[in-house]
Amino acid sequence: MKMKSSDAFIRVSRAAAFVFVVLASILVETQAFAQTDPLPSWNDDVAKQAIVAFVKETTTQGSPKFVPPEARIATFDQDGTLWVEHPMYTQVMYCLERVPALVKAKPSLAKVEPFKTVLSGNRGAMAKLSMKDLEKILATTLTGMSVDEFNADVKTWIATAKDARFKRPYTELTYLPMQELLKYLRANGYKTYIVTGGGQDFVRVYSEQTYGIPPEQVVGSAGGTKYGYDKSGKPFLTKEPKLLLNDNNAGKPEGIHLMIGRRPVAAFGNSPGDQQMLEYTKAGDGARLAMLVLHDDAKREYAYGPAQGLPATKVGAFTQALYDQAQKQGWTVISMKNDWKRIFAFE
Amino acid sequence: MKMKSSDAFIRVSRAAAFVFVVLASILVETQAFAQTDPLPSWNDDVAKQAIVAFVKETTTQGSPKFVPPEARIATFDQDGTLWVEHPMYTQVMYCLERVPALVKAKPSLAKVEPFKTVLSGNRGAMAKLSMKDLEKILATTLTGMSVDEFNADVKTWIATAKDARFKRPYTELTYLPMQELLKYLRANGYKTYIVTGGGQDFVRVYSEQTYGIPPEQVVGSAGGTKYGYDKSGKPFLTKEPKLLLNDNNAGKPEGIHLMIGRRPVAAFGNSPGDQQMLEYTKAGDGARLAMLVLHDDAKREYAYGPAQGLPATKVGAFTQALYDQAQKQGWTVISMKNDWKRIFAFE
Repeated sequence: MKMKSSDAFIRVSRAAAFVFVVLASILVETQAFAQTDPLPSWNDDVAKQAIVAFVKETTTQGSPKFVPPEARIATFDQDGTLWVEHPMYTQVMYCLERVPALVKAKPSLAKVEPFKTVLSGNRGAMAKLSMKDLEKILATTLTGMSVDEFNADVKTWIATAKDARFKRPYTELTYLPMQELLKYLRANGYKTYIVTGGGQDFVRVYSEQTYGIPPEQVVGSAGGTKYGYDKSGKPFLTKEPKLLLNDNNAGKPEGIHLMIGRRPVAAFGNSPGDQQMLEYTKAGDGARLAMLVLHDDAKREYAYGPAQGLPATKVGAFTQALYDQAQKQGWTVISMKNDWKRIFAFE
Repeated sequence: MKMKSSDAFIRVSRAAAFVFVVLASILVETQAFAQTDPLPSWNDDVAKQAIVAFVKETTTQGSPKFVPPEARIATFDQDGTLWVEHPMYTQVMYCLERVPALVKAKPSLAKVEPFKTVLSGNRGAMAKLSMKDLEKILATTLTGMSVDEFNADVKTWIATAKDARFKRPYTELTYLPMQELLKYLRANGYKTYIVTGGGQDFVRVYSEQTYGIPPEQVVGSAGGTKYGYDKSGKPFLTKEPKLLLNDNNAGKPEGIHLMIGRRPVAAFGNSPGDQQMLEYTKAGDGARLAMLVLHDDAKREYAYGPAQGLPATKVGAFTQALYDQAQKQGWTVISMKNDWKRIFAFE
């Protein structure tokens, strides 16, 4: 009997599939032997053990705390949790450095405060600017342009601007142990999100390249946009000075609901602005992981917050109350000094 | 020389990897021969050809219109595009049917309009309710409860409520050709989103099960929530009567920017509420696909909108202006009557 070519294909296909599966199994087992520590920059202490145990119990089929892949949501604060926030949030640096260009386009601003102070370059005077002054600078530098213009400007800035102490681009000041954690969670089926008090549009510009987190997985403080048309009839969006979401404190779980619609299973923060996100995460059923990064390493990074008897600073002050809540509610505190072998990839 | 066991493993691993790759290639090619039509419910006409050509040119490496996987965003309106919207949006049915429970909890409402009319069950009177009346009903039935309570209530309702004409759950009234399209795009690396004028929280309850679209990929009209604690100190979110995003018309591209942060490469709609989303999608560089579903099949579904000389209805009226814009801007109009072999899976 003559065999049809389609039959032949099916036979080849079946045979190939069988060998494929067998060899794939060998490969997987072989790789398991060669498997290396997914968190090499972490010391083998309480924090690392908590992470590894959590991943194991939520991803092992049959485990009483198994979490189905679609529900594996992990949320990360950015400033002070994924990268350096001291002495000033990177986004605030961007806004301050954008003032000269702004004044060039609108010279009358040069004589108006707080722009006058920023233009003076007097760091002492700039440090004394009030919250209201800062808000004015933020509103002026972050709105009024098209979304595409803003994205292009941030992209250029972030590629060239450098931190004063480390003399490196801000995007190199991410914490290596947290980068490992992001990858480890993703390798185990977790969808990783940034949930930042910073500007959503700002962080989205570099999130993919810096953290492997696509723009649609960045939740942040967000302003409204306005749809319109240019002279040629081409539609575009303009950034409006209208706050839709203040993604800090209670705004974090509210923002998570708005943008993700699921309660996270794991959440990571470092300041009182993250308190509600961690509470909300922990209040869900089943296994939950809530962690706080404590900045207690003045030598390699910074030390601030009263939990270590250190002075609080303007940014991300880790308060005693937050530390107490962590102890009470079973959040794990990550000591940068003790838990992290390396802090930066460039070390 | 004795070989170390780790060396042996590496050698086995390499050999296995090589055979693995070779056989995987054979398997893929074999499967290509056996590949079946991904859009079997579509007639082989202009609309189907436009879809297949678009997918091919955006996903073929080396094609001048190749779109990298991370940028493959496709957005779908829901009502009238993915499922039946006639004679009343499903969510409005939910709100109307929720009124008795609402009155039971708060009996004074029974004597107040528009609740009195809804309770009467008089369909003629209900059809005459004004937009303002409907908004009152929506605000009262969609806010004031916790997010968890709302989700549970919608889940129960959607599992049991039935459409009056088709006598089937609303979730069975999705269009089979559009379900095939969603799967076809996903199989080609597209991330599929719902971008609906309907309530984001409402659609998210059933989107995964009904369309294979997870809640975080549903963008819709969204209200604010308020973070708080119950008596035991457990945090929860309450749905507030405060509109954050009216995801219709210009609100669609604005919502896409807020929730996704990327311009879609493909967009699908059926009414003037989708106009701006389609314009915005088409205005991007490179290959773009914009399509409109035309309801011109009174026998199998409904026929409405003046494009076919048919009377407009309250919902989703496909206007002549929209039809003209489609012709002018190169959007493809999908005729339900001519382009779809089957409309529903249950046919």
